[in-house]
Amino acid sequence: MLSELNRGLHEECGVFGVYNVPDAASLIYYGIHSLQHRGQEGCGIVTVDNDGTFNRKRGLGLISEVFNPEILRSLKGNMGIGHVRYSTHGGGGLDNVQPFYFRHKSGNFALAHNGNIVNSKQLSDMLEDRGCLFHSTSDSEILAHLIKKNDETPRITAIIEALRMLEGAFAFLIITENRIYACRDKNGLRPLSIGTLGDGYVVSSETCAFEVIGATFLRDVEPGEIVCIDSHGLRSNFYTEATQSNLCAMEYIYFARPDSDLEGCNVHSYRKESGRLLWEQSPVEADIVIGVPDSSLSAASGFSEASGIPNEMGLVKSKYVGRTFIMPSQELREMGVKLKLSAVRSVVDGKRVVLIDDSIVRGTTSRRIVDLLRESGAKEVHVRIASPALTHPCFYGVDIPTREELISSRLNVDELCKAIHADSLAFLSVNSTLAAAKGRANMCFACFTGHYPTDTFLETEKF
Amino acid sequence: MLSELNRGLHEECGVFGVYNVPDAASLIYYGIHSLQHRGQEGCGIVTVDNDGTFNRKRGLGLISEVFNPEILRSLKGNMGIGHVRYSTHGGGGLDNVQPFYFRHKSGNFALAHNGNIVNSKQLSDMLEDRGCLFHSTSDSEILAHLIKKNDETPRITAIIEALRMLEGAFAFLIITENRIYACRDKNGLRPLSIGTLGDGYVVSSETCAFEVIGATFLRDVEPGEIVCIDSHGLRSNFYTEATQSNLCAMEYIYFARPDSDLEGCNVHSYRKESGRLLWEQSPVEADIVIGVPDSSLSAASGFSEASGIPNEMGLVKSKYVGRTFIMPSQELREMGVKLKLSAVRSVVDGKRVVLIDDSIVRGTTSRRIVDLLRESGAKEVHVRIASPALTHPCFYGVDIPTREELISSRLNVDELCKAIHADSLAFLSVNSTLAAAKGRANMCFACFTGHYPTDTFLETEKF
Amino acid sequence: MLSELNRGLHEECGVFGVYNVPDAASLIYYGIHSLQHRGQEGCGIVTVDNDGTFNRKRGLGLISEVFNPEILRSLKGNMGIGHVRYSTHGGGGLDNVQPFYFRHKSGNFALAHNGNIVNSKQLSDMLEDRGCLFHSTSDSEILAHLIKKNDETPRITAIIEALRMLEGAFAFLIITENRIYACRDKNGLRPLSIGTLGDGYVVSSETCAFEVIGATFLRDVEPGEIVCIDSHGLRSNFYTEATQSNLCAMEYIYFARPDSDLEGCNVHSYRKESGRLLWEQSPVEADIVIGVPDSSLSAASGFSEASGIPNEMGLVKSKYVGRTFIMPSQELREMGVKLKLSAVRSVVDGKRVVLIDDSIVRGTTSRRIVDLLRESGAKEVHVRIASPALTHPCFYGVDIPTREELISSRLNVDELCKAIHADSLAFLSVNSTLAAAKGRANMCFACFTGHYPTDTFLETEKF
Amino acid sequence: MLSELNRGLHEECGVFGVYNVPDAASLIYYGIHSLQHRGQEGCGIVTVDNDGTFNRKRGLGLISEVFNPEILRSLKGNMGIGHVRYSTHGGGGLDNVQPFYFRHKSGNFALAHNGNIVNSKQLSDMLEDRGCLFHSTSDSEILAHLIKKNDETPRITAIIEALRMLEGAFAFLIITENRIYACRDKNGLRPLSIGTLGDGYVVSSETCAFEVIGATFLRDVEPGEIVCIDSHGLRSNFYTEATQSNLCAMEYIYFARPDSDLEGCNVHSYRKESGRLLWEQSPVEADIVIGVPDSSLSAASGFSEASGIPNEMGLVKSKYVGRTFIMPSQELREMGVKLKLSAVRSVVDGKRVVLIDDSIVRGTTSRRIVDLLRESGAKEVHVRIASPALTHPCFYGVDIPTREELISSRLNVDELCKAIHADSLAFLSVNSTLAAAKGRANMCFACFTGHYPTDTFLETEKF
Repeated sequence: MLSELNRGLHEECGVFGVYNVPDAASLIYYGIHSLQHRGQEGCGIVTVDNDGTFNRKRGLGLISEVFNPEILRSLKGNMGIGHVRYSTHGGGGLDNVQPFYFRHKSGNFALAHNGNIVNSKQLSDMLEDRGCLFHSTSDSEILAHLIKKNDETPRITAIIEALRMLEGAFAFLIITENRIYACRDKNGLRPLSIGTLGDGYVVSSETCAFEVIGATFLRDVEPGEIVCIDSHGLRSNFYTEATQSNLCAMEYIYFARPDSDLEGCNVHSYRKESGRLLWEQSPVEADIVIGVPDSSLSAASGFSEASGIPNEMGLVKSKYVGRTFIMPSQELREMGVKLKLSAVRSVVDGKRVVLIDDSIVRGTTSRRIVDLLRESGAKEVHVRIASPALTHPCFYGVDIPTREELISSRLNVDELCKAIHADSLAFLSVNSTLAAAKGRANMCFACFTGHYPTDTFLETEKF
Repeated sequence: MLSELNRGLHEECGVFGVYNVPDAASLIYYGIHSLQHRGQEGCGIVTVDNDGTFNRKRGLGLISEVFNPEILRSLKGNMGIGHVRYSTHGGGGLDNVQPFYFRHKSGNFALAHNGNIVNSKQLSDMLEDRGCLFHSTSDSEILAHLIKKNDETPRITAIIEALRMLEGAFAFLIITENRIYACRDKNGLRPLSIGTLGDGYVVSSETCAFEVIGATFLRDVEPGEIVCIDSHGLRSNFYTEATQSNLCAMEYIYFARPDSDLEGCNVHSYRKESGRLLWEQSPVEADIVIGVPDSSLSAASGFSEASGIPNEMGLVKSKYVGRTFIMPSQELREMGVKLKLSAVRSVVDGKRVVLIDDSIVRGTTSRRIVDLLRESGAKEVHVRIASPALTHPCFYGVDIPTREELISSRLNVDELCKAIHADSLAFLSVNSTLAAAKGRANMCFACFTGHYPTDTFLETEKF
Repeated sequence: MLSELNRGLHEECGVFGVYNVPDAASLIYYGIHSLQHRGQEGCGIVTVDNDGTFNRKRGLGLISEVFNPEILRSLKGNMGIGHVRYSTHGGGGLDNVQPFYFRHKSGNFALAHNGNIVNSKQLSDMLEDRGCLFHSTSDSEILAHLIKKNDETPRITAIIEALRMLEGAFAFLIITENRIYACRDKNGLRPLSIGTLGDGYVVSSETCAFEVIGATFLRDVEPGEIVCIDSHGLRSNFYTEATQSNLCAMEYIYFARPDSDLEGCNVHSYRKESGRLLWEQSPVEADIVIGVPDSSLSAASGFSEASGIPNEMGLVKSKYVGRTFIMPSQELREMGVKLKLSAVRSVVDGKRVVLIDDSIVRGTTSRRIVDLLRESGAKEVHVRIASPALTHPCFYGVDIPTREELISSRLNVDELCKAIHADSLAFLSVNSTLAAAKGRANMCFACFTGHYPTDTFLETEKF
Repeated sequence: MLSELNRGLHEECGVFGVYNVPDAASLIYYGIHSLQHRGQEGCGIVTVDNDGTFNRKRGLGLISEVFNPEILRSLKGNMGIGHVRYSTHGGGGLDNVQPFYFRHKSGNFALAHNGNIVNSKQLSDMLEDRGCLFHSTSDSEILAHLIKKNDETPRITAIIEALRMLEGAFAFLIITENRIYACRDKNGLRPLSIGTLGDGYVVSSETCAFEVIGATFLRDVEPGEIVCIDSHGLRSNFYTEATQSNLCAMEYIYFARPDSDLEGCNVHSYRKESGRLLWEQSPVEADIVIGVPDSSLSAASGFSEASGIPNEMGLVKSKYVGRTFIMPSQELREMGVKLKLSAVRSVVDGKRVVLIDDSIVRGTTSRRIVDLLRESGAKEVHVRIASPALTHPCFYGVDIPTREELISSRLNVDELCKAIHADSLAFLSVNSTLAAAKGRANMCFACFTGHYPTDTFLETEKF
């Protein structure tokens, strides 16, 4: 599992918007900085000036590389939206970095998107038949073309009609000359929360951004809701009544920052509770508990406290590993891997270890970590995963590999235990995965169960 | 204490060398990368080719910014040394980035230094009287000039004579055409360890670097020892017999990486034990324990396990905060601080908190963190510091402010408790600080006690 | 005058394409490098791989800054097009840098454009009514939307129909999966030439690019012609029969490189002949002739040879002035101007000077040069301009200021002579401007005469 | 010939200083910018603040790349020196970029040097015996160590004693806390001129810099003179009475900018006169004269006016070729050469050409240009070189290849004519080379004659 850089599980993107706040660009800078963990390929900010001018900056790289004070100063205005993008295969480079901006005489606008549209092929076919040209390979561009632009249809009606055509997972921010629309898909697969700041509003994929800028959490955007933010304050519309609360379980388990609250449940607390339940479900006799940094540290702490087994720092992750370059030999490349994560011999040597991780994707990283611990002298390594076995691909914006690559879709727990060189292996049950979010009625568990909350628009043989 | 960026406590530099290992430059790259936490201002590598050519690269910035595969390829040779530099006041920019390289017909050489020479003014005066010109403002340049260069004196004798003139803290690596000298001051204030790798050797400020490159720890360089590494293997010389084991306590408490072993004691284990002793010494009734990330997490875990109070992630540090730029308004700057470290309301709200930190320097950061926790709803905040109160400056390479700035030299514990807005405050005793390194007889506690293990060469009124 | 950087007269862009040549990207690199004088704001290359993949790179800055060998290697394929862009007001940054690339299921394509569409407002209105969204502020995007994309209309028919809607000046290159279309407006306002290279073809705004890559000039694209280049070789279509030969006179006078041939006439030879005719038309008694470097050196040489007055290097232009930055004081800024162009006192002192320049736009630069010469001791300064007085704006892609800013639209020759501090002033007649291109029947002289070869689509009061 | 980039003849460096002028750094920026043609590898500026602080910036690359307004602002002070460095083999990178700065308690100082010390090996040996360590591979560092630093010797005496030990060519600027010393070798091999600006002074390798910053030429520094500039104004000292006027002929022929005056003779006028004398000496029947841009254009113009043969732009040099990268194939590399310099077919085709160049070094470039002209249709190519044949290496700072590489040391004129594929070939005589600088009594012609004005300190067999 090692790190976001090579685990094979990735969230696609984060969005952030502010309305009626001075220095909007600086606020958005901090906001998307707090969402940087949701995407590191590129980022962008669009602001709208008092006179309706759109100011824009997009770039490949981290937020701290793309923006500087001079650029922020040039992004004038009291409202704006921002985006961080995770790099998907296909790439497309700068063309795919959002927010996307569109010129049209009925009013220019920009949009930012987190999620994935499952009927994008069907929709782009239809649009191209009408003569539309596309600039990016991103499905996020589709919504812009779907929104009807003529004098008769009110903008909100046009957006509602467009959203009704979309199937899948999305949190959309649309900004026009004088308004921000915050839209969330009818299953609520991707999170989107609203806060207040002074006389204005902020919208964010995660609430951790609110703490940084001093905003106060107000409420979540509801599944199927379009919140329109303008000089009249907040106004709510729903593009459908057939809504459900199917927030993606992986947001709790892996993606979201521990200091975010997702629909009322804190992520660190969720993870700690999942560690506690994991101990209850699959206890083991051992000397020390080790969590894989950083995302499994909360679960490890819960497991340790429930079990009374000391929680030790047996794996250390380097703080300074940024973009790395390819070393010429295999041996040097392996050192590069250890540079990122290494086992602490003095802690591990001679010990029976419980290794807590949040998931197993391909199994290669898990095996590498188990091996690392054994090389450093661990007598036994018992792997406990704070989520169910990953067996199905995600179509809603999580970059999970194909079914063939998901090792749990090929091996049962015993086989997998051997494959990763562990002494024992256990996963958290789906029930406990839900129960860890105390009081929650449902989540999307599609990647564990294959029960997708929407039509997938894929021919059956594809997965 | 927030982070290295603004805590006011800084180690100066790390050194790393390899002898008789193919692709020395790549190994050194990984080695100094593992030491990056000891200095982020600049870094450099010098290798020596088979034909005696010195290849060099120095630069300002992080290792990953200064080096790339092309540069590493150009640094040919099987031996070399590297350096990471922490930015001291005075600066000097690139001129001060080591290793320093010197041309002389008796043989070119390069050197890298961790530590501080306390009689540098006296020595540079003497050298300038002789006609020496200096290029940097660093005291590390002095040793190069002190080493006698003539045909009669053997190099090792010249180095011994030069080291005898130095007073202070140092770990020096000197590389010549065919040899590396690893030298440590007679008090052993700065760490320096030797490992083996294949048929060759590695030398490092910290052992964490050995794990990454697959080297095996051999032994520490002893206080007062000069280890000469060449085709004859290791040969030991001592420049004095008046040696003592006074390793800097702050190496254990704050500087070193948790996965390093300092003179046989693992740093994470030391810190966890210090947390345990801290609970024994100064217990308190509370709901949760929170450690200031990252350096106080081990101590917090020890405190929690000893006390049975749950250890929670109540403070979150952003992983993506790199070099930051100055925002134009005070308000925006404060957001920048929160971007680096923020409190987690859902975890903290309504709780009695024990906050574990490793030290208090000026008090401003401690107060800011206590305030952060209270703003997020903490009912009580009890501060426990896993080291004694800092009352005296360091002259051995730790960038501790002047005595006036050290809040503990002005306020007693009760006054300080109020100053940082805490409900209670306790420091670890000096005895426990030593005891946490089980079995150790001594350390340098000068910054806590004012007992300096060397002459300080300062007129009394200065501190 | 002075230089492209501040003269106020600018060509907009150059285009270059290759078909069926190995390493197309490297060839295009050299091709657009030879056209760099036509635009320095940005540049781009699109190639099409054997499997129909489009590879692209665009960037702001000079070609040597945007491209490097690694990028060129990544632009695989045997065919491609390139573009250099001149920065117009309005800017738009990277979004406006061409070639533009468009995705459509009927076949992706890219295009590059030199010139200006005069009915762009009317066309974009129509397209937006149909639902088109625009990404750039460039009129070059319009053609892409105008081309009908459906299964019934053959591509060449769709292009012909689209071009018939365009009014103005253009040289377009369109590249599809297997074909390049080279199109020129019906007045032939912008140049476009075809060469052969091995078994393939090259297309370029100017022939100077052919010499560099070893291509052989074949013929010009005719006004109104669409040359389709594919595996069948060259095929010619005309989108209209109402064609005329109105090549822009400023291409001869100022824009094109001296080593280019425009419709059969070499640019250096044209300029030298214009200098000769200028002497015949407006002789003057003087000691030396000085041409304003670089564009007026040929005319100065023609004037000198015809008159027998020695041609001297009395003005020197720095070779190293690239992108300059703004100095804080007026005095320092004036030094910056002299850094670019300075008078040579030893050459000029005490002399009666004939100053040859190619045009006067606002008059400020002319006055500055006359003053420079007088400060360096010139006794008399007689200005001879190797073109007629500029009195009207250009709507075909030359960045001429508004009529109010054109000093010749406000002042007659005598007044202007005083305004620029000259002792005498003369312009070349329109007839001689045509005659210098020996044998040519017509050119576009609209900026001198106000006779525009197309409808201008502007309300009368606008100019 | 072609260009500085590959001709094999290079001046090493230019120096520039200002005393008592506000914003010294900006002035020096312009000054060394005007001297950029003398060196493009690196550059640096040192200023001295009112309080005696030295502010410094050095970098590899062009002046416009190394400096920006922020850096210039940081270089506070009313006095300073600057340097442009030409890249010699051996390199040394940033370490060798001047001005060099030295710290010593007797007073810090910096120096900048143009020229070459021929007894540098002997001097560095002596200095190293004394214990000196060197940082660069540049001979310019020697002077710093030679200057005695003690309380008894006045600084001017120490400098005089040091200069007496130096043999070779030099123009040195030394800056201390309150003074600039401008020193020129006793043969006056390298130029150095003084100007006045307001109440202050400027010193420059060439006078072209004066025009840019508005300074007035005052006088040249004399051979053997040390001009001391401080609050007492200018004071003159001579370190020897055995002086001669042996200014390097190549300064006139090739290095200096046409708008510089070298010891009273304008460079453009010198070159034009040399072209005139070349026609008188070696006339030829031809249709057109073509000068190799840029350095031979003045000579071509003189040849044309004397002969009546029209001067045409038959070779065009690209303005945009900056740093170039290596293309993967020979064919692409040859295009790169043509990108820099190409022949103009329309001008050259069918013509008998006189090609004027300033020198022939290895012969390869001359042959390439002759071939270029023939490929473009030239019927005959008569080469006329505006200087004598280069037969001997230079030890005074001109980067002339070894004798074996100088084609004129191996071939006589007839053989060389064939070797470069010319129809006829002639060089200017040494007498005419002197005569072109009207009224001048002597120059250094060592590279043409082998008569070196100083001892060369080389064993005979070396050249």
